[in-house]
Amino acid sequence: MKTVTGVTQKETLKISEILAGEYDGCEVKVNGAVHTIRDMGEVAFVVLRKREGLLQCVYEEGVTEFSLKELKEASTVEITGRVNREERAPHGFEIRIRTIRILSEPAEPMPLQISKWKLNTSLDAKLNNRAVSLRNIRERATFRLQEGITRGFRDFLYSQGFTEIHTPKIGAKSAEGGANLFKLEYFHRPAILQQSPQFYKQMMVGVFDRVFETAPVFRAEKHNTKRHLNEYTSLDFEMGYIDSFEDLMSMETGFLQYTMKLLEEKYAEELRLLNIQLPNVDSIPQIRFDEAKQMVAEKYNRQFRNPFDLEPEEEHLIGELFKEDYGADFVFVTHYPSKKRPFYAMDDPADPVYTLSFDLLFHGLEVTTGGQRIHDYHALLEKIEKRKMETEGMEHYLSAFKYGMPPHGGLGIGLERLTMQLIGEDNVREATLFPRDLSRLEP
Amino acid sequence: MKTVTGVTQKETLKISEILAGEYDGCEVKVNGAVHTIRDMGEVAFVVLRKREGLLQCVYEEGVTEFSLKELKEASTVEITGRVNREERAPHGFEIRIRTIRILSEPAEPMPLQISKWKLNTSLDAKLNNRAVSLRNIRERATFRLQEGITRGFRDFLYSQGFTEIHTPKIGAKSAEGGANLFKLEYFHRPAILQQSPQFYKQMMVGVFDRVFETAPVFRAEKHNTKRHLNEYTSLDFEMGYIDSFEDLMSMETGFLQYTMKLLEEKYAEELRLLNIQLPNVDSIPQIRFDEAKQMVAEKYNRQFRNPFDLEPEEEHLIGELFKEDYGADFVFVTHYPSKKRPFYAMDDPADPVYTLSFDLLFHGLEVTTGGQRIHDYHALLEKIEKRKMETEGMEHYLSAFKYGMPPHGGLGIGLERLTMQLIGEDNVREATLFPRDLSRLEP
Repeated sequence: MKTVTGVTQKETLKISEILAGEYDGCEVKVNGAVHTIRDMGEVAFVVLRKREGLLQCVYEEGVTEFSLKELKEASTVEITGRVNREERAPHGFEIRIRTIRILSEPAEPMPLQISKWKLNTSLDAKLNNRAVSLRNIRERATFRLQEGITRGFRDFLYSQGFTEIHTPKIGAKSAEGGANLFKLEYFHRPAILQQSPQFYKQMMVGVFDRVFETAPVFRAEKHNTKRHLNEYTSLDFEMGYIDSFEDLMSMETGFLQYTMKLLEEKYAEELRLLNIQLPNVDSIPQIRFDEAKQMVAEKYNRQFRNPFDLEPEEEHLIGELFKEDYGADFVFVTHYPSKKRPFYAMDDPADPVYTLSFDLLFHGLEVTTGGQRIHDYHALLEKIEKRKMETEGMEHYLSAFKYGMPPHGGLGIGLERLTMQLIGEDNVREATLFPRDLSRLEP
Repeated sequence: MKTVTGVTQKETLKISEILAGEYDGCEVKVNGAVHTIRDMGEVAFVVLRKREGLLQCVYEEGVTEFSLKELKEASTVEITGRVNREERAPHGFEIRIRTIRILSEPAEPMPLQISKWKLNTSLDAKLNNRAVSLRNIRERATFRLQEGITRGFRDFLYSQGFTEIHTPKIGAKSAEGGANLFKLEYFHRPAILQQSPQFYKQMMVGVFDRVFETAPVFRAEKHNTKRHLNEYTSLDFEMGYIDSFEDLMSMETGFLQYTMKLLEEKYAEELRLLNIQLPNVDSIPQIRFDEAKQMVAEKYNRQFRNPFDLEPEEEHLIGELFKEDYGADFVFVTHYPSKKRPFYAMDDPADPVYTLSFDLLFHGLEVTTGGQRIHDYHALLEKIEKRKMETEGMEHYLSAFKYGMPPHGGLGIGLERLTMQLIGEDNVREATLFPRDLSRLEP
């Protein structure tokens, strides 16, 4: 009986194994995609693209047992050759090629020059050719960093006793949400796509005390801006037994601290490729919503329009002000007006016009919304009544409260927005593998 | 300026801190939900439910500064009291209560007796009251183990150089799939929910070499069985530069080995609660599809009906046979008939009636489908033509192949099915937080 016993060591080497130095002078085997070929006459540089980066291989006429003419860019190959310490090669090593075995070949020449340092093309062209444009090593680095953020979020929360949950994305119609929900037919019944795991994560706080989820959410908003997506990945947590909503901001700060360290340690190459300075997360200022508005109005001599709303322009200026005056990359803006928050937000007992809630701004853009929630069943019903909402479709949610819930709160982080601010881009699509917006449903 | 500097140590203790022993005899603070109250007259046992498990607290009349009558089950509380080493308490420690502070109270008595060892109620009742039924510590343990599986999958794949991706769940209509797709309207255009990240993860193999995703998938199948869900969590990976489809089975076996160790180390309490014996994953037998059919026909004296199909009953018998004859919990069944696999499956060059593919059976149930894919553009077009399929809607997918792709393959694991087999349940809904099926759209 043939059996499978686990991962077996491959003969082909990783870049890190070559760079470790112990193979210097040895014949080795490597594989990868032919990223670019630079023909210099008697020698040619064949650069392989591997998941860790680029590897320079040297083709020498008469030495390499293969005809250079038969080698195409975008082929994938297996190469044998001698490891050579060479200062001018990236990372100080190259492979002097003895043999080349073709693993696969492209059918057509590349539509984009992916081997350029910067892809010299429009965002639209990049998105239309995502499977190709991301072969540029700087383009793909963004998504390696995005992995680091998600991974940091989960690993940090595991260490803090959170349980990961998977909640359904298809749901029954409910009173909450309404216009911003995508609708679908579910076996002849009307259904919607969830715009957030909010209700589910709250229900699960009564079970696991602390829960998180990293999953897609869907918003049928007709915004066509640089910072909106109709489907995005939300990093959500919900946390019971809090003493105050400030516990949530502490937890988020802990996540950011953990994650920046993780990026520094495990994603250094990507940070280098994109020339990223990690933001300061040792200490994040917090400021009340009304005070932040006041500060911005004074410093930038702005008209104070709606006292209960924060315009994108104001968010931007708060970011600017805190960077200039306090050297801060992040700012927690707290105590949002109750009428701007959902019914389940806990009003501030000291002044119920405001809530025990916050947004986190990163360089002037909202990347998180969070806050304490109402945990008492009767208080929740009162708030619903005060807002003249229907409880239809919320029976299951409410019943969790009927049977007792700890004081709790939570937050949601937009993964793509956080990534975009980290890499210093101004369009969230740059930080989305396959964006979905008003006009884009493919690829 | 007030600032947030990260997670601060709470005064309240975790169960693990109490069990470490150093607080023996000390007054401490703990919080939790009142799981059950057993009134014995002059003393009462107040059992707190915390995320790590149960904690026995002792109420003593005249000592505890609180009236027992005012304490309700399902309240959440903060208790101060002295740690007492007590053999008869679970885990050997209890808290002798001095004060009780109520954090929250339920509005109504519980609809289910969650403190019972086994919840004595129907699956339907459990699902209807999910937010309550999961407060039973054995019920919730299932989902802690489910966390462990997902966590093991990701951590193992990170260690193997895989990159995590997030692919869109809303997509344009395509030729593939068809009847089993949920349809929705996307800003006045027809759209669908993805039944798998297949196309996207393949496209990303050309970028990152190895990718994975853990995300929901949607299938509008009208099956109403114990093992089908219309929305489930799929653990998917796709891997480039494989030498053979057997590399995929090796990687999956590596994942299972890593994960069973993780469960043993970090989820021992949950394994104990559910009395689970971890399956043997040191060495997993592999058997060809046609041979497996033959073996089952012989051993169980079954009629050999369709030679190109494996019925659920046959899968079950394969599981039984391999358990009996080889002590195997898992079996890889390889070389499925080409006509039973999607167009992108790589046919076996030695016999194109079959494919270089496999299913993994766990105690006789399919928990994984995987295999090598066609990586050559022209070969892919030929297969599509041979099947008389349209390429409409697949242009982006196909263009990735046009510009070169390494030999690759991958697999998808049904998280809920794997969990269900691990805990030895016979209905996948037992291993789904909020199942979606033909009749269930709520909670």
